Amino acid sequence: MYERFPEPSDHEALHKGMPQTGRQLLADVSLPAAVIHEPALAHNLAWMQAFCEAQGARLAPHGKTTLCPELFRRQLDAGAWGITLATAPQCRAAFQHGVRRLLMANQLVGQANMAIAAELIEAGADFYCVVDSVENVDQLARYFSARGLRLQVLIELGMPGGRCGCRDTDEVMALAERIDSEQALVLAGLEGYEGVVHGDDPERSVRAYAWQLVEVAQGLERDALFEHPAPLLTASGSAWYDLIAGVFREARLGQQFVPVLRPGCYVVHDHGIYRQAQREVLARQPALQRGLKPALEVFAQVLSLPEPGLAIVGMGKRDIAHDQLPEPLRRYREGDERARPLSVEGWRVTKLMDQHAFVRLPAGDEAMGGGRVRVGDIVAFGASHPCLTFDKWRRLCLVDARLEVMEVMHTCF
Amino acid sequence: MYERFPEPSDHEALHKGMPQTGRQLLADVSLPAAVIHEPALAHNLAWMQAFCEAQGARLAPHGKTTLCPELFRRQLDAGAWGITLATAPQCRAAFQHGVRRLLMANQLVGQANMAIAAELIEAGADFYCVVDSVENVDQLARYFSARGLRLQVLIELGMPGGRCGCRDTDEVMALAERIDSEQALVLAGLEGYEGVVHGDDPERSVRAYAWQLVEVAQGLERDALFEHPAPLLTASGSAWYDLIAGVFREARLGQQFVPVLRPGCYVVHDHGIYRQAQREVLARQPALQRGLKPALEVFAQVLSLPEPGLAIVGMGKRDIAHDQLPEPLRRYREGDERARPLSVEGWRVTKLMDQHAFVRLPAGDEAMGGGRVRVGDIVAFGASHPCLTFDKWRRLCLVDARLEVMEVMHTCF
Repeated sequence: MYERFPEPSDHEALHKGMPQTGRQLLADVSLPAAVIHEPALAHNLAWMQAFCEAQGARLAPHGKTTLCPELFRRQLDAGAWGITLATAPQCRAAFQHGVRRLLMANQLVGQANMAIAAELIEAGADFYCVVDSVENVDQLARYFSARGLRLQVLIELGMPGGRCGCRDTDEVMALAERIDSEQALVLAGLEGYEGVVHGDDPERSVRAYAWQLVEVAQGLERDALFEHPAPLLTASGSAWYDLIAGVFREARLGQQFVPVLRPGCYVVHDHGIYRQAQREVLARQPALQRGLKPALEVFAQVLSLPEPGLAIVGMGKRDIAHDQLPEPLRRYREGDERARPLSVEGWRVTKLMDQHAFVRLPAGDEAMGGGRVRVGDIVAFGASHPCLTFDKWRRLCLVDARLEVMEVMHTCF
Repeated sequence: MYERFPEPSDHEALHKGMPQTGRQLLADVSLPAAVIHEPALAHNLAWMQAFCEAQGARLAPHGKTTLCPELFRRQLDAGAWGITLATAPQCRAAFQHGVRRLLMANQLVGQANMAIAAELIEAGADFYCVVDSVENVDQLARYFSARGLRLQVLIELGMPGGRCGCRDTDEVMALAERIDSEQALVLAGLEGYEGVVHGDDPERSVRAYAWQLVEVAQGLERDALFEHPAPLLTASGSAWYDLIAGVFREARLGQQFVPVLRPGCYVVHDHGIYRQAQREVLARQPALQRGLKPALEVFAQVLSLPEPGLAIVGMGKRDIAHDQLPEPLRRYREGDERARPLSVEGWRVTKLMDQHAFVRLPAGDEAMGGGRVRVGDIVAFGASHPCLTFDKWRRLCLVDARLEVMEVMHTCF
């Protein structure tokens, strides 16, 4: 029951959503669709850049959150120092979209991935990756010396019970000596990730870890083990960046190191774990005015109202992060050009399947602002965390306050 | 820190994996990568087609599992009657890759989605969708009559506490009368989905539901409410298809209806919920020889061995289904052209982050077949369920028994 399998002329047209600019989200766009609100996005971009500058730190936003070149461009336009990424293919995608300074905050493992990094370096990228083992250092030295290239590496300092990274200062120093002995490798800094901290007093643990990073970096500097003229000292995910920045500032690194912060989720923020984390940032830092704003939502339509109190919505695990159940935020009538939001008070997602959400409605929803829910009504959902919503979409709609599509952004997952 | 944002000439080259045919998976492919084993795939394609034919049913595999045109082609080549899909953009993607008979087992809601369906019908697609409410029937009738088109619809029969679908026979009959009064709509069959069955004796409930479908369809036929010359009677996901097929066969529908089964996951099977479901199918159907074989795996590399008993692997929630934690299946040395599998006995994934898996190793792994684990070792993981692994990849490697890449398949999510 097929005739042929042509290569479509516009392969991109095949993907879900397929929004076009100039369309109205509530009338002209195939839903479900991922939506970024431009005013909140602009606020977040400026907010985090100003925060980093006030702290005397550089910002290399973690690009794995979005893998969206249009957002990388906005981050760099706002003043970011570079883009952080998690894998070699991610670095290639960013570079091919014009990002020149690539901080791969992860180990570079495997011949095929090393080949990608080598090509980026040959093409002029300012590329960094991290190392935490002699075995990997030897692999990298062998590969890059055979290619006649030099690779900039940062040693990763981890923590006991954490993820990657050397577990103590002795391991770091031994690894630095090994790197020093390899002509193909340039020790360019020290890297850490405090996001895997655990224990009863995480705030105290994060600060202690940040101080350990400072001290280990100073030890490497004392022993003249950095080959890079301006070694990097870098840490921070999206929850504890204020504490990392605070310690780096207190340590007065200014002349000695380039302090680099790497939050990623801030750019669109979220409606779950990072909203909570941001409340804690603001509680710790009373000088900060107005925090980040959630900018990413998924819009979807009511498909069926099969029983009293139950709406089935056309949005599932393929469309939105599902570590936590998404949160209904607002409702609209399809085609409402004035985009008047209706209440979803008492609405609750109870289950998510691949392509469907089960939404429990309160009794007597007829009385709610805007009238009885209808098949075709459009619901805006928030979720946590943004990385796991972005990776479900090849296209996202950037919309203005009237929900008109200003720009179609794309991702490179 | 960027120069320009060119539109790359081969946008596809930017995505993770980027495998090429003729490469060896263990030496030449950037990992992590999604891998389909050709021998198991070929077995599954033939197995399910033979099962459906033996039952006298047509097979319209659910294409939302893979959204992979190369797999649709193989399913149709094996004898499938059409492809089932979940959304209008999915139907468009399948049609643009040559699939002509499209069974959208979901409600068609929203002007933009109706426009996609209308374009498919105008282009010659044999398109069906389902309806379960007067509201949606009225919306569809208005849209398609304004376009001067006729839309083939199936009524969905649901179940109390289930997902979409009319909750009883009266509702179905009333909806059929409504459809009958609309010139733009053609009642082409009855649809159900038993996968949301619940209760203490699901086997009994599924059979009862299948019989209800038969009886309701026969009632519609008696009342001459089907306008389609060969109305469809369709149900079945990937767990209970044998029971649905059995009832449809016992009911001797042959001449009266076209029975259509819609399993999707069978094509690559899995290492979790569907492996268990298939064991139950084989226990219920002793005549069936050898069941389905898991064909989909994700290959990833050990990035770090930071503590005794812990491996950090470069694979995360972005790469593999994570409703259940993935299962390590085998290990290889990078570059081993003979692809000799090493044991992962006692290995266990304990945590998955966006880009990393934490794998707990047994004490004394040095003694395990093939020697001590090394940074760079390649681990094959299985997961459940396949839909949520496919949607993480734009490209998948089809490999032969020697792990050479035979074909690069793509997805249209």
